[in-house]
Amino acid sequence: MSNPRRFHGIIPPLITPLAGPDTLDVDGLERLLEHVVDGGVHGVFVVGTTGEGPSLSHALQRQVVSRTRRIVGDRVPVLVGITDTSCEESLALAAHSADVGADAIVLAPPYYFPAGQTELTQYVRRLVDQVELPVMLYNMPSLTKVTFDIDTLASLADRESIVGVKDSGGDLDYYRHVIALREQRPDWSILIGPEHLLAESVALGGDGGVNGGANVFPKLFARMYDAAVVGDAARIAALQEQIDKLQAIYEIGKYASKYIKATKSAAAVRGLCRPDLAEPFNGFAQPEQDRVAAVLDTLDPELVS
Amino acid sequence: MSNPRRFHGIIPPLITPLAGPDTLDVDGLERLLEHVVDGGVHGVFVVGTTGEGPSLSHALQRQVVSRTRRIVGDRVPVLVGITDTSCEESLALAAHSADVGADAIVLAPPYYFPAGQTELTQYVRRLVDQVELPVMLYNMPSLTKVTFDIDTLASLADRESIVGVKDSGGDLDYYRHVIALREQRPDWSILIGPEHLLAESVALGGDGGVNGGANVFPKLFARMYDAAVVGDAARIAALQEQIDKLQAIYEIGKYASKYIKATKSAAAVRGLCRPDLAEPFNGFAQPEQDRVAAVLDTLDPELVS
Amino acid sequence: MSNPRRFHGIIPPLITPLAGPDTLDVDGLERLLEHVVDGGVHGVFVVGTTGEGPSLSHALQRQVVSRTRRIVGDRVPVLVGITDTSCEESLALAAHSADVGADAIVLAPPYYFPAGQTELTQYVRRLVDQVELPVMLYNMPSLTKVTFDIDTLASLADRESIVGVKDSGGDLDYYRHVIALREQRPDWSILIGPEHLLAESVALGGDGGVNGGANVFPKLFARMYDAAVVGDAARIAALQEQIDKLQAIYEIGKYASKYIKATKSAAAVRGLCRPDLAEPFNGFAQPEQDRVAAVLDTLDPELVS
Amino acid sequence: MSNPRRFHGIIPPLITPLAGPDTLDVDGLERLLEHVVDGGVHGVFVVGTTGEGPSLSHALQRQVVSRTRRIVGDRVPVLVGITDTSCEESLALAAHSADVGADAIVLAPPYYFPAGQTELTQYVRRLVDQVELPVMLYNMPSLTKVTFDIDTLASLADRESIVGVKDSGGDLDYYRHVIALREQRPDWSILIGPEHLLAESVALGGDGGVNGGANVFPKLFARMYDAAVVGDAARIAALQEQIDKLQAIYEIGKYASKYIKATKSAAAVRGLCRPDLAEPFNGFAQPEQDRVAAVLDTLDPELVS
Repeated sequence: MSNPRRFHGIIPPLITPLAGPDTLDVDGLERLLEHVVDGGVHGVFVVGTTGEGPSLSHALQRQVVSRTRRIVGDRVPVLVGITDTSCEESLALAAHSADVGADAIVLAPPYYFPAGQTELTQYVRRLVDQVELPVMLYNMPSLTKVTFDIDTLASLADRESIVGVKDSGGDLDYYRHVIALREQRPDWSILIGPEHLLAESVALGGDGGVNGGANVFPKLFARMYDAAVVGDAARIAALQEQIDKLQAIYEIGKYASKYIKATKSAAAVRGLCRPDLAEPFNGFAQPEQDRVAAVLDTLDPELVS
Repeated sequence: MSNPRRFHGIIPPLITPLAGPDTLDVDGLERLLEHVVDGGVHGVFVVGTTGEGPSLSHALQRQVVSRTRRIVGDRVPVLVGITDTSCEESLALAAHSADVGADAIVLAPPYYFPAGQTELTQYVRRLVDQVELPVMLYNMPSLTKVTFDIDTLASLADRESIVGVKDSGGDLDYYRHVIALREQRPDWSILIGPEHLLAESVALGGDGGVNGGANVFPKLFARMYDAAVVGDAARIAALQEQIDKLQAIYEIGKYASKYIKATKSAAAVRGLCRPDLAEPFNGFAQPEQDRVAAVLDTLDPELVS
Repeated sequence: MSNPRRFHGIIPPLITPLAGPDTLDVDGLERLLEHVVDGGVHGVFVVGTTGEGPSLSHALQRQVVSRTRRIVGDRVPVLVGITDTSCEESLALAAHSADVGADAIVLAPPYYFPAGQTELTQYVRRLVDQVELPVMLYNMPSLTKVTFDIDTLASLADRESIVGVKDSGGDLDYYRHVIALREQRPDWSILIGPEHLLAESVALGGDGGVNGGANVFPKLFARMYDAAVVGDAARIAALQEQIDKLQAIYEIGKYASKYIKATKSAAAVRGLCRPDLAEPFNGFAQPEQDRVAAVLDTLDPELVS
Repeated sequence: MSNPRRFHGIIPPLITPLAGPDTLDVDGLERLLEHVVDGGVHGVFVVGTTGEGPSLSHALQRQVVSRTRRIVGDRVPVLVGITDTSCEESLALAAHSADVGADAIVLAPPYYFPAGQTELTQYVRRLVDQVELPVMLYNMPSLTKVTFDIDTLASLADRESIVGVKDSGGDLDYYRHVIALREQRPDWSILIGPEHLLAESVALGGDGGVNGGANVFPKLFARMYDAAVVGDAARIAALQEQIDKLQAIYEIGKYASKYIKATKSAAAVRGLCRPDLAEPFNGFAQPEQDRVAAVLDTLDPELVS
């Protein structure tokens, strides 16, 4: 039952609590981290998409990493998103992450110019060879414009320091093919992004989820992970119902940022941090906040808290 | 004949000559700048898409701006792309640009999370209010995922320091609508990105082009601009034939980076700088280089050099 | 017998192992830290004078702090020197130190323009009010040109976050006056820099030493601290003889950097790290290295190792 | 009459107008630069001792250099002080200075750890070999703790890119020995710091002065330089009387910072910029300001304005 792979279970893609423009809300970060660690998560992933990594200045990105490691201590692993359009800046953040004792870095393709698969392979190889920490590859085609083709992942399996894949593509068929790469790399951690697919992905052999909702309801997702690992169908069904209900918060806004707005808004409803997004985005206004709160009210506290 | 608007004519989106990973080729930059200024361009635009701005570290971006201003002196205006996913980093580059005496900044939407039009309007307003230099808005939907809607542009016309639009969308109907905004802002410079549309855009009332090919053949584009301004149909036809032939170099590679690869390759053929792109991209290999050279051989030296 | 004050015992002013110009020797730092922690020290002080703080780039200073905290974990407190001629840069390093979980910062006067005592008081107040961590004041007149007058220290006693004084002035009469400030601040940690005065300073009521020799011989100084605390005269005499012998290494070079050269050279003799100093200084050459080794040979392994 | 050497005449060590903590007063800088250029100075030296270089953050130092070059244009040369305790940071400022088109850098010894002369020689050689711009050596023993020995200067004469010496030591006998180095390097510019020695230094063969008072009274010093060059004894005497009277402002404060306080205060009296110093120092308060104004009132407007 215990998972032999390096990263598994629930690893929330941590939202970044903000106190003002490009200013970390240190107290909010501390509350949030205590909340998720108490909630039983198995790691945290900072400066990712949900963490609004690309919207933060490099100085703020570094601060988030430092503070998170400090607050979390050795309780759970800390993974750091280093995706950037500039290779040099990615390397700088990777070096800082190693310096402060992060456990791994997470790398998606550069996202301004779409790279071809050959270029992507070469890019990952070069970068991996220059960083000290283990690397998780991050498939996020809706925002990076580029998919990690299965063949590309296969060709990257020769790099020992690549230790897994985080797939936010939302296509379980693709996910299945990633799982099949375990023939080459039985040690790879294979995690899923979209939270409503968590149970199903574990049933397919996945190692867990990097689920935004776990910022707010870590116990719900930790329970689902546990239920999915042992295949407890009744429990899975009950928890899936809660997760499905929760998805309504992501339908409130528009554009890609709506996921983050909803998550930060839900975190605000629960008193964890302010709902503000990093510039140029706004958090939800009161009417949307109220709708988020209304959705949260429909959840079963026994299952989600 | 003389154009009363701030920016007009040919303003090449300058490629960034590189001597190694994240390292400026200062001599190459100097050669290139002398080449385009001698060739009669009316300005240069650095750290844009063609300049691989997003692929350069912030330190290198700043260096490109400083060096360009220094080399160019007061001969032509220098415009600087400050587009970034982080507002804070955009502001920092804008401040540096003002410090070194750049003439304007050029701003496209942030490109990781697509912004809605309301957010985009607010973003531009906030940013414009914090920068010292005049601002050109930059429509580049293929890479930023977001178009500046005409209504959005109209609503931004109240900001005096916005002085024009650079449109790389490639849709002349959209361009026509931008031109129509002159009712509100007769002072706006309206420039076109795609070089094969230069003459037509000027005929529509446009002010000139930010054309990648002008890195290599500044005289060709300067001649076309002059011909288009006076409406010399025969001359326009002859020059258009040359520009159309040149377009073949952009069909050699794949993906969005192919335009830059072709431009840098053509610049290398003409001895201006190395063909290398910023990481993670490669420049063309010898076979593609040869094909670029072959295309250049088909051009009429009388018209292009 | 147990010391109620925040910082006490032996807190080596850590040398900075270097692998090349402005490049941290991470392995060397790890060896050195394990060596001193195993040797029983009660804390470490990084980026101070002995750590060549002023000679390191700001990026390297931050890296030293991050790595030290990471390697040391919670085993002993980490103190960070933030002294700089620019207030802004001091604040930036203080913020980074807080982010990575350092335990305190250590502040000497700015050292280019000598400040008057009124200015110094004001400077410390302003800075202390902007930093998150507790502050130790650092008297180092030979290099900063300015002494913290006793009256100045007294007037600073109203700041709760100032938690003590590290005195490297070498004048026990001054040290006695600092100790007397305990009337106002019984909680202050009062530490001595010059290692040959360690025992005597503890006898006067001091809390321990920030002694360069403890980089190489942590056990020697930890034993001396223990002996001094209990007043074991015979043990103190035996250990003092060893410390006095060790002082010969500091007579080998010239200028203020000779202390660091000797310490790094002794560390090299013991296989901890390379003897190189940060630019513009060199480490000892072979003849001086041999003289250091010869001095170390005269020490009694029973007492120093 | 015309001086064949690269730098000569009056090159004010520019004060840095501040609008707040670590914030440039851009308008003040512009006023000041127009004032001194209009006043006939032959260059400006920024980020030096009088410019409070060591008290400014690196970002602010870079901004001062960029803005100064931009405002001054090609009217007079811009020299930049890059002295720092960290070699790496000096190199970074030197690279930025070259990028923005500064004319030379000015280098004093690192000032925390005093270097020996052999180390100093090696330091200058290494640094000079890594910078693109010509270098002036800067003798400022009262603040750097270290003198450039004449033998050291002689041994550095083999570096072509060293183009002169700025001596602020205040010892004309030393200055004479520097002048004698022209046997080796007839091209060297040899400038004097203390303004009351300007005429005498030119009589000895010096090339001019880097005189703080020229921030406020550029014409006075430019006239003195002209008079000294032609040896007009009556004119020299009249102007020396004015300069001697002006020295009274430097007796008003205490410590090394009093020179800067007086200069900024005098600049404030003349409406050029605020009298504030960079932290941790204060500008003069009203009573001292009044005394400065009183001294300025004693000067002969015909000669100084």
